[in-house]
Amino acid sequence: MNKAPDAVLTKTFESRTAQLAAFAAGLRHAHVPPAVLRKTEDLLVDWFGSAVAGHSARPVESIARFALAMGPATGPSEVIATGASTSPHAAAMANAAAAHVVEQDDVHNGSVFHPAAVVFPAAVAVAQSIGASGAQLLVAAIAGYEVGIRVGEFLGRSHYRIFHTTGTAGTLAAAAAVGQLLGLDARQMLHALGSAGTQAAGLWGFLRTAADSKQLHTAHAAGAGLMAAYLAQDGFTGAADILEGKQGMAAGMSSDADPTRLVDGLGSRWATAETSFKWHASCRHTHPAADALLQVMQQHGLAAGQLARVVTHVHQGAIDVLGPVVRPSTVHQSKFSMGTVLALAARFGHAGLTEFEEAFLAPETQALRDRVEMVLDPEVDSAYPRQWIGKVTVHTHDGRVFEGRVDEPKGDPGNTLSRDELSAKALRLAAFSGRVAAGLMARAVDRLWHMEQCPRVGRLLERLP
Amino acid sequence: MNKAPDAVLTKTFESRTAQLAAFAAGLRHAHVPPAVLRKTEDLLVDWFGSAVAGHSARPVESIARFALAMGPATGPSEVIATGASTSPHAAAMANAAAAHVVEQDDVHNGSVFHPAAVVFPAAVAVAQSIGASGAQLLVAAIAGYEVGIRVGEFLGRSHYRIFHTTGTAGTLAAAAAVGQLLGLDARQMLHALGSAGTQAAGLWGFLRTAADSKQLHTAHAAGAGLMAAYLAQDGFTGAADILEGKQGMAAGMSSDADPTRLVDGLGSRWATAETSFKWHASCRHTHPAADALLQVMQQHGLAAGQLARVVTHVHQGAIDVLGPVVRPSTVHQSKFSMGTVLALAARFGHAGLTEFEEAFLAPETQALRDRVEMVLDPEVDSAYPRQWIGKVTVHTHDGRVFEGRVDEPKGDPGNTLSRDELSAKALRLAAFSGRVAAGLMARAVDRLWHMEQCPRVGRLLERLP
Repeated sequence: MNKAPDAVLTKTFESRTAQLAAFAAGLRHAHVPPAVLRKTEDLLVDWFGSAVAGHSARPVESIARFALAMGPATGPSEVIATGASTSPHAAAMANAAAAHVVEQDDVHNGSVFHPAAVVFPAAVAVAQSIGASGAQLLVAAIAGYEVGIRVGEFLGRSHYRIFHTTGTAGTLAAAAAVGQLLGLDARQMLHALGSAGTQAAGLWGFLRTAADSKQLHTAHAAGAGLMAAYLAQDGFTGAADILEGKQGMAAGMSSDADPTRLVDGLGSRWATAETSFKWHASCRHTHPAADALLQVMQQHGLAAGQLARVVTHVHQGAIDVLGPVVRPSTVHQSKFSMGTVLALAARFGHAGLTEFEEAFLAPETQALRDRVEMVLDPEVDSAYPRQWIGKVTVHTHDGRVFEGRVDEPKGDPGNTLSRDELSAKALRLAAFSGRVAAGLMARAVDRLWHMEQCPRVGRLLERLP
Repeated sequence: MNKAPDAVLTKTFESRTAQLAAFAAGLRHAHVPPAVLRKTEDLLVDWFGSAVAGHSARPVESIARFALAMGPATGPSEVIATGASTSPHAAAMANAAAAHVVEQDDVHNGSVFHPAAVVFPAAVAVAQSIGASGAQLLVAAIAGYEVGIRVGEFLGRSHYRIFHTTGTAGTLAAAAAVGQLLGLDARQMLHALGSAGTQAAGLWGFLRTAADSKQLHTAHAAGAGLMAAYLAQDGFTGAADILEGKQGMAAGMSSDADPTRLVDGLGSRWATAETSFKWHASCRHTHPAADALLQVMQQHGLAAGQLARVVTHVHQGAIDVLGPVVRPSTVHQSKFSMGTVLALAARFGHAGLTEFEEAFLAPETQALRDRVEMVLDPEVDSAYPRQWIGKVTVHTHDGRVFEGRVDEPKGDPGNTLSRDELSAKALRLAAFSGRVAAGLMARAVDRLWHMEQCPRVGRLLERLP
């Protein structure tokens, strides 16, 4: 794709990783179909709502305090919903922590990766710092999504069993987005991916004791990826074969890596557009079953009190992530409890932020929670992660049994949220945060819908009082 | 060891990781034998020389530029040998990058871990920020060494085949040192280790293309570990079982983890004192063979020109790390070339910084380099990593064959460097850097020898002009 001046690198420039790097570096606005640009604005609005909502969460405030204590007290980059400004690195870390905490940020099914939480914080912070345009921001975000999703697909299910893909693949996604904004050439971008991959980290172990690590993972990915791109711009080199090499990411952190996924349809398949929005405020692994349960309840006019037992037929990944969460003790942990999510959906018709905050430990929720089971389903498991099928068997107290099924949970590309629904979701998230007035948020969201035309990204939220 | 108020954590507080955390949090000056304190001063002086020498290296300058661009322009913590001051986080990253680049920093054999490069940069930066005493700095460093070494031993040889243990175990080492300085209790320290372990990263892949990642690994470990400790002080929680848990570090990054090593002799065995100093300025895997070759040459009065062939009998780890480096193209890469190191040692009696800089590509060096082989030796391999035995077979042009053997290469605890040798090494390193005047360096080293009595750590180097 590119002539490397350095002989030792010439061969590796033909590698899949090099092709991915060349794509991320060479992507231009004119290459991207308008529908993908519109989808990217949707993703931007959706991310912004999550970032605003998350900034008042305790773990996020800890990370923001650290970033602001260690970074400069003023700078070009906005710490969203706090009124603070600092360096791109510090802002990216704080905003990335915020975006992932309320479990409302987007997800790409095939890679089981949450791109927005790592890509937009890094890209927005840098765009604000260098005075980039809205169109440049969108193209950078797309570079990040396309790289991160393919890396996540490449690392596979064995990786996800132990590693939080959003933390690992997310580091390369952030590097690609920032590298695109900084104008890296293909060779520099390959170095940026190398420096990102060698910092990639994030383990699922924290879920067992309801620890705060998920926010640290996104903060770390955004910060380390951003650093990798700046270093590459400055001539710092990274491993040429960080993904497929004998001592690279797949060798160390996967047993079923699929190299073909790294370059799958580069430039023709837009993985960005495959990304799903979250409707329920919980781990995405709970959504298919929640929607299938709601379908049964609506079709048969059932109320929560009528449910005697709900069997969810799930993929192994759901069991791996949700299985350890039996008696959730915090709001955040309860978002990884299949029983809690289904109980809230059954009781309120939607498992949203407010439902979790107010009712995750209510006796009625707990009673219903303990009547929900997960069983491995071969059909669901073999379709996963390409497709996230929801299947439930519902037993009522009066002895009836119903089957429910959804092939595309709400928010998936074939069952997506409209711009009105996305705006409303963002406004709900802002209201939940209690920090940002409705009018301020509405103006900010309205501007984001026209990001492509903005000559400068600028501040996303007018300065708070 | 400790009563956790949180029920969910009570059981995990009996885990080995919790015992390690309680040790690191509870360590006090009175617990440490004087000989270990003296050794820690030795390690401090030795680290300082490497940090001074490394700051003018291109990759280190890149990391320092990034840290200073993203951090505050002034602050309590010193960027060694540059005259700059910034926040503890930014300074720790810059100084950690510097300490590892000239391949003269210390190594612990059993863990194959370079503690100084990650522990001292984090500990010194924080000590300067909070006004800690010299004695507190030494105790904090010991906490970092004891934790990092045990984590490295725990992760084992399978980990080291793919991962750079100094980057991974180093993140926990930095967290333990900083956590000790910040006064974390046992519970907070366990959270700090959790947040450090979930950021632990560093892959060997970079060696194949002579990339700059080694400096990024130490910068990352020091920065991420420091962050983990500050977050824990602020109430941020981490996985309770980050090392042994089903989705923890060993599960994801090792296939031969040995849990008993985590608590091996805690409080009675001082792993800090087992640390070796480097004499040659190269990867430690080359030192045993280099010393064995020098022994043969001295005993039999051989000159470099008489060597027809040198067979080194090595452990598998040496083949894994050094094997890919056949035609080194940079000074740094040549430090991972067994042939180059032995050629320089044979030609000059010592493979030091100046020898590498001036002669790693000299025709005489290359000719000799290509006459050096590595073969796996069962005895050497089974003793490794506990003991690093050097064995060589030397063939001369006139047909003679000699065997050489050293059981403790120069710098190992049983063949250590004296304080005079350490001072001289530090002064040589400063001279090599070309940035720090000899008198300035001599005064700084002299003060470090008395660190235990310093009421404040303060600046290590008087301000540069």
